[in-house]
Amino acid sequence: MDEQRIAPGAVLGILGGGQLGRMLALAAARLGLKTHIYAPPGDNPAFDVAHAVTIADWNDGHALLGFAESVDVITYEFENIWLGAAELPGTHVPVRPGLRALKVAQDRLREKRFAEELGIPVPPFADVRCEADLQAALGQVGLPAVLKTRRFGYDGKGQVMLREGDDLTAAWEKLGRVPCILEGFVSFACEISALLARGVDGSVAAYDVPRNEHENHILRHSHVPSGLRKETEEAARAMARRLAEALDYVGVLAVEYFVVREAGGTERLLFNEFAPRVHNSGHWTEAACDISQFEAHVRAVCGWPLRAPKRHHDCIMTNLLGEEMNDWPALAAEPDVVLHLYGKREARPGRKMGHFTRLLKPAAG
Amino acid sequence: MDEQRIAPGAVLGILGGGQLGRMLALAAARLGLKTHIYAPPGDNPAFDVAHAVTIADWNDGHALLGFAESVDVITYEFENIWLGAAELPGTHVPVRPGLRALKVAQDRLREKRFAEELGIPVPPFADVRCEADLQAALGQVGLPAVLKTRRFGYDGKGQVMLREGDDLTAAWEKLGRVPCILEGFVSFACEISALLARGVDGSVAAYDVPRNEHENHILRHSHVPSGLRKETEEAARAMARRLAEALDYVGVLAVEYFVVREAGGTERLLFNEFAPRVHNSGHWTEAACDISQFEAHVRAVCGWPLRAPKRHHDCIMTNLLGEEMNDWPALAAEPDVVLHLYGKREARPGRKMGHFTRLLKPAAG
Repeated sequence: MDEQRIAPGAVLGILGGGQLGRMLALAAARLGLKTHIYAPPGDNPAFDVAHAVTIADWNDGHALLGFAESVDVITYEFENIWLGAAELPGTHVPVRPGLRALKVAQDRLREKRFAEELGIPVPPFADVRCEADLQAALGQVGLPAVLKTRRFGYDGKGQVMLREGDDLTAAWEKLGRVPCILEGFVSFACEISALLARGVDGSVAAYDVPRNEHENHILRHSHVPSGLRKETEEAARAMARRLAEALDYVGVLAVEYFVVREAGGTERLLFNEFAPRVHNSGHWTEAACDISQFEAHVRAVCGWPLRAPKRHHDCIMTNLLGEEMNDWPALAAEPDVVLHLYGKREARPGRKMGHFTRLLKPAAG
Repeated sequence: MDEQRIAPGAVLGILGGGQLGRMLALAAARLGLKTHIYAPPGDNPAFDVAHAVTIADWNDGHALLGFAESVDVITYEFENIWLGAAELPGTHVPVRPGLRALKVAQDRLREKRFAEELGIPVPPFADVRCEADLQAALGQVGLPAVLKTRRFGYDGKGQVMLREGDDLTAAWEKLGRVPCILEGFVSFACEISALLARGVDGSVAAYDVPRNEHENHILRHSHVPSGLRKETEEAARAMARRLAEALDYVGVLAVEYFVVREAGGTERLLFNEFAPRVHNSGHWTEAACDISQFEAHVRAVCGWPLRAPKRHHDCIMTNLLGEEMNDWPALAAEPDVVLHLYGKREARPGRKMGHFTRLLKPAAG
């Protein structure tokens, strides 16, 4: 265990220069670690808080190798990186959470199958390799359904809703005639996520489960506590743990679920997707816990001890999208509001510019 | 007010690259601000989290001017900088907390006189310009007493204790035959500090008062709450506020007091010194408050709204000096411990390498 520890003063390499990379770098700095950020040209807010940066494309093998040789461990801030970027450096330094998680997370079909094989309930789904598969898939899955590209989807991108009488060819065209998955539409009561950190030694530290509200497929609010039954939250955490173990995962894992409310008030969970990284639905942990998800991730990938994080407040986290960040002066003045802005240059519509956490009341002991 | 606001995306200039500069930079980043650190060559841990750095001597007018022209506001992490470094850039961008505070804080004699003129109780003191003054000063102040250089003292450096029969010439020689102040030794029950932030608009946000334990003149622990009477804490804050107003201060101000316990349990305060900057005795605010002293300082110097910080836990902050930081794996594993390491290269004896805050119980409403 000790030799797997990346000590203070060492360098954490981060693939990706967005707000998640930035918040990871800030957490790493508080632990006395240096960070080296690798990202393609563009607006990379993580660069502003990094010890070193490499600006290069994801498939620049030479730059990746140089990067890998200058760091002690590598992590990534998003799952849609070219696998080669994670694989190549892997020959020199550990890449965590790990390639297996990345491969599974990058492919919605593989992800659903992986969860299903672990006995985790998933909505009905079918493989759609070509337009001809689509009709058969609909017979299997039913309507309404959601057609999603297997790869590169996020925040509602790469998906289209299908209802009775919709034009299947148009849907197939819209997604670019690429391999897809058809998923049965789930009429959910709400959405939640389980967030946990798993260490190099297999130890697990889990957070309280947030209830997540989306608008236009983008996270708007996370509420903690979720208001759901304790058994539901326990089940969400237990399934996330099962996934983490099956993936031999190291770092913070976020697993999103639909909650279906059944007759008698029973709450049933359906796996939606997982993110092999720190997650937007865990941003409240920085304001309301003694160890944030960012610190937990850094600890995990650096082989540091994990411990159960303690939450001191009930809270609601709200994303600031696009021009909403112009409200910063009012938010900064509001009691109980903890503000976090990402330092992005351009406030494009829908772009995540920051978030704030409203602390409600002290958490129940 | 609005035009004095430094908006997200703007650049905060920080004179000094140590741990205070580093923690200021981390706080600024969370508010979407960039930082540019100016420091002489050496181990500058703040560089690792800065958007830009300038490595130059304090008296390098050319470098200072370039620095000033590249930032939107300037602050400093310690008070013993060459005044010219703060004065020169002042011609272009605001320098906060401000020159007046710097000038007063740099001279122990001026500082004591300034406090005294504001009606703040100070220990007996006398001006010692030459060795010949010393005997007269002792007559005035009494024994035991502490002879201190007027300038460049910190963590017990630049001072010598004088008791009955001590060799005055030796003491005078030891301090380098420089202008001094002789202070009556205070037999104190404990030491406390008042920490507050004052905004560009004169608004004030104050923290709870920590009780500070020193070892070898270096801060070892800060305890919050202090355990002292509410009136004592109120008085400490009120005097700090008076000082801040008299200095037309902008930023976080830390004022240190001796607490003398008198017959009947009355607690009497005597001003010791103030620091025109964030202060070691406020490090617990990062772990136990919704707004840290670093964020409060950044907000103040950038003209942002201040608001009363809320403390959610009772706590004890402990400095990690020298090799003590090697305890990080055990500390990282301990429940309720929030660890902060500074990323310094060399753990010299007595050097401040990090600190940790132990969260005790939720703060009383």
